[in-house]
Amino acid sequence: MDGTTVRVGLLGCGNVGGALAQLILNDATEIQARTGLALELARIAVHSTARERPAPIPAGLLTHDAAAVVNDGSIDVVIELIGGVEPARSLILQALKSGKPVVTANKELLANCGAELIEAAATSGVDLLFEAAVGGGIPLIRPLRESLAGERIRRVMGIVNGTTNYILTRMTEAGASYHDALAEAQQLGYAERDPTADVEGFDAAAKAAILASVAFGVRVVAGDVYREGISAVTAADIGYARRLGYVVKLLAIVERSAGEVAVRVHPAMIPTDHPLASVRESFNAVFVEGDAVGELMLYGRGAGGMPTASAVLGDLLDAAHNLRTGGAGRALTLEATAIRPIDDLESQYYLNLEVVDRPGVLAGVAGVFGEHRVSIKSMEQEGLGEEARLVFITHSARERDVQACLRDLHHLDSVDRIGGLLRVIGPE
Amino acid sequence: MDGTTVRVGLLGCGNVGGALAQLILNDATEIQARTGLALELARIAVHSTARERPAPIPAGLLTHDAAAVVNDGSIDVVIELIGGVEPARSLILQALKSGKPVVTANKELLANCGAELIEAAATSGVDLLFEAAVGGGIPLIRPLRESLAGERIRRVMGIVNGTTNYILTRMTEAGASYHDALAEAQQLGYAERDPTADVEGFDAAAKAAILASVAFGVRVVAGDVYREGISAVTAADIGYARRLGYVVKLLAIVERSAGEVAVRVHPAMIPTDHPLASVRESFNAVFVEGDAVGELMLYGRGAGGMPTASAVLGDLLDAAHNLRTGGAGRALTLEATAIRPIDDLESQYYLNLEVVDRPGVLAGVAGVFGEHRVSIKSMEQEGLGEEARLVFITHSARERDVQACLRDLHHLDSVDRIGGLLRVIGPE
Repeated sequence: MDGTTVRVGLLGCGNVGGALAQLILNDATEIQARTGLALELARIAVHSTARERPAPIPAGLLTHDAAAVVNDGSIDVVIELIGGVEPARSLILQALKSGKPVVTANKELLANCGAELIEAAATSGVDLLFEAAVGGGIPLIRPLRESLAGERIRRVMGIVNGTTNYILTRMTEAGASYHDALAEAQQLGYAERDPTADVEGFDAAAKAAILASVAFGVRVVAGDVYREGISAVTAADIGYARRLGYVVKLLAIVERSAGEVAVRVHPAMIPTDHPLASVRESFNAVFVEGDAVGELMLYGRGAGGMPTASAVLGDLLDAAHNLRTGGAGRALTLEATAIRPIDDLESQYYLNLEVVDRPGVLAGVAGVFGEHRVSIKSMEQEGLGEEARLVFITHSARERDVQACLRDLHHLDSVDRIGGLLRVIGPE
Repeated sequence: MDGTTVRVGLLGCGNVGGALAQLILNDATEIQARTGLALELARIAVHSTARERPAPIPAGLLTHDAAAVVNDGSIDVVIELIGGVEPARSLILQALKSGKPVVTANKELLANCGAELIEAAATSGVDLLFEAAVGGGIPLIRPLRESLAGERIRRVMGIVNGTTNYILTRMTEAGASYHDALAEAQQLGYAERDPTADVEGFDAAAKAAILASVAFGVRVVAGDVYREGISAVTAADIGYARRLGYVVKLLAIVERSAGEVAVRVHPAMIPTDHPLASVRESFNAVFVEGDAVGELMLYGRGAGGMPTASAVLGDLLDAAHNLRTGGAGRALTLEATAIRPIDDLESQYYLNLEVVDRPGVLAGVAGVFGEHRVSIKSMEQEGLGEEARLVFITHSARERDVQACLRDLHHLDSVDRIGGLLRVIGPE
């Protein structure tokens, strides 16, 4: 690093990379005035140098050879925006090994190989920063790592996937069915043609693993995360939730208790006056509960080229400042941890049963709950012609008991269908 | 600084200082395991060493002599939690001059002498950190200084005073009058016996000055802030706001445009689906709008011993890390700026007039609006016996024109009373 100029090597120039290049090229003078750091976009490794870019990028900066960018001795900081595990992993390891700080937004890589990368950064004494990997433009990783460094965090609950939040918002506010809301999200470009990664919770699960790692300093990978998506959530569930004072959100939840960490992604009912309940459309938010700080929420754009590039730029300036002062930010250390099985979860539950409408049915159903020590907090019955729908909210119960309950309810003649099961967040 | 042990000198041991002492004394081992930094509470300067403390504090740590703590060569970091301008200012300047980083939560001092302190810190190359000065436990100053270092911030709007937010929440949700809601807040300990600093917006104005300084890197002091409190807000205004799709909040707003900075505190109507609208009770939140990042909101406990101490602890660990690595965080530089007069504000307005109920009155009132080029967006009329109430929402207009309008309306025979004027945030 030569004086105040920071030479940046960018790997990948898609949606986020293109936006970042635009920010650096357009705002370099203003950024220098504000921070004293002159950012110079030195080289950009891309898949195809011939492809049209959304922003005008000097053609001379483009190269096919990502390894050459990483190994270029004149480059001070490497930014990885390729995505996926390989070759991103090898390129980042090589950069760190040669003493270059790395900024990445790669949630898939971090959720699978995070510990390896973090260790490599610590060994080399350089920064590995990844604010943009969770919650796009929302300052989230830095507050958790720095502002809350002395805080005993109990739980983090996040709406970390904009696609599913958009779909659930449309189902809630317009009464749309899941399939109509998904189709609308696809039309607007919020959902992919194959929406599996979003709607089945894989994207949120990767982010949950990263959140758990950072919030608790533990080693959690995507495969540790219990995961359910939103494709089984019905308009009826959402309607009942609303009537009972709740909204349905897909939550990534990480909790610590008694030496174990629980990490899960599933749709849940949250009270309408909870701050997460008012996070609408494709916005993201992360709600943090700590012993001293109480309740915090960080809210914003969880995706999109510009918001995500803004977070990458913040990290880049941090790494550049640390380079200039000859240091690095605080290294993360990840300890091994036991993962709490979902069967051990204690939660309230919402349960929606379609039953035959005849005397004695409720007694039979209630008997099954009682056998498994699942206590009912409230019940509503609604006639549906020859059938009836029973909607229950339980008191806090253990997941394994509720699941055993469901298995027994399936075998009751009087139960036609188990319509929905949702975990309920909130006070008893 | 000897190896990893950080000797902390604490000035002030009231609500926040006591909570911080408790956190350091109870959690030192856990904090060391997580961060590698051993915090040692070395000395605590207090007004009265005989006073009972809420937490058990070793009596040997207490001293009357704050200057001796600052000048103690064995102390690494000074934490100022005395409040007020003097002697806090002199003590902080002395600490910075002798090369000790300082953490403070002192909004009054920062809002009046911030530039002097920031310059002293930069000259000595040590940290001056003040996360807890605005928004209590909410990570706010660090995200603005670091995560958003490369962001062109357009506007920051905050609910930064918990007392007034509690009062407005009670007025909104329970239909309470201002005086009853204030009395309730006083009974619960949310409001002081003399509530002036909160309800007239002085506390929020100090925080607005700090927010403007940090968000825009400009020199703004409390006296630059246009300020109106909530004591003139009526239950009727809040009722009309709700009917029109708004809630009333006391906002601290800082905006940058065309080389000028606008900084103001006043009650405002915000749309019910705006994220700030769901910030209830004594919670705080700050909404940030930036060119690249879009919309962000940071929400949490804006006051209270433990949440505020949590933010101080985060700063302390930051300063300690920087000391250990021989550097300092990024220094703030504050440029001089022109302050935009409130007369130049462009906003929508809510206006509530009590008028004589006879033909031609509306025409007269509308004529006054027209003369001053204030365009009406919507109007509602409600009978009040012999009188009528006219409620207007204007299109975007200039403050000076609206004020001129009000002066003329006062002179109309048909206007008995101008019931309320509120600025309206939101799309046209």
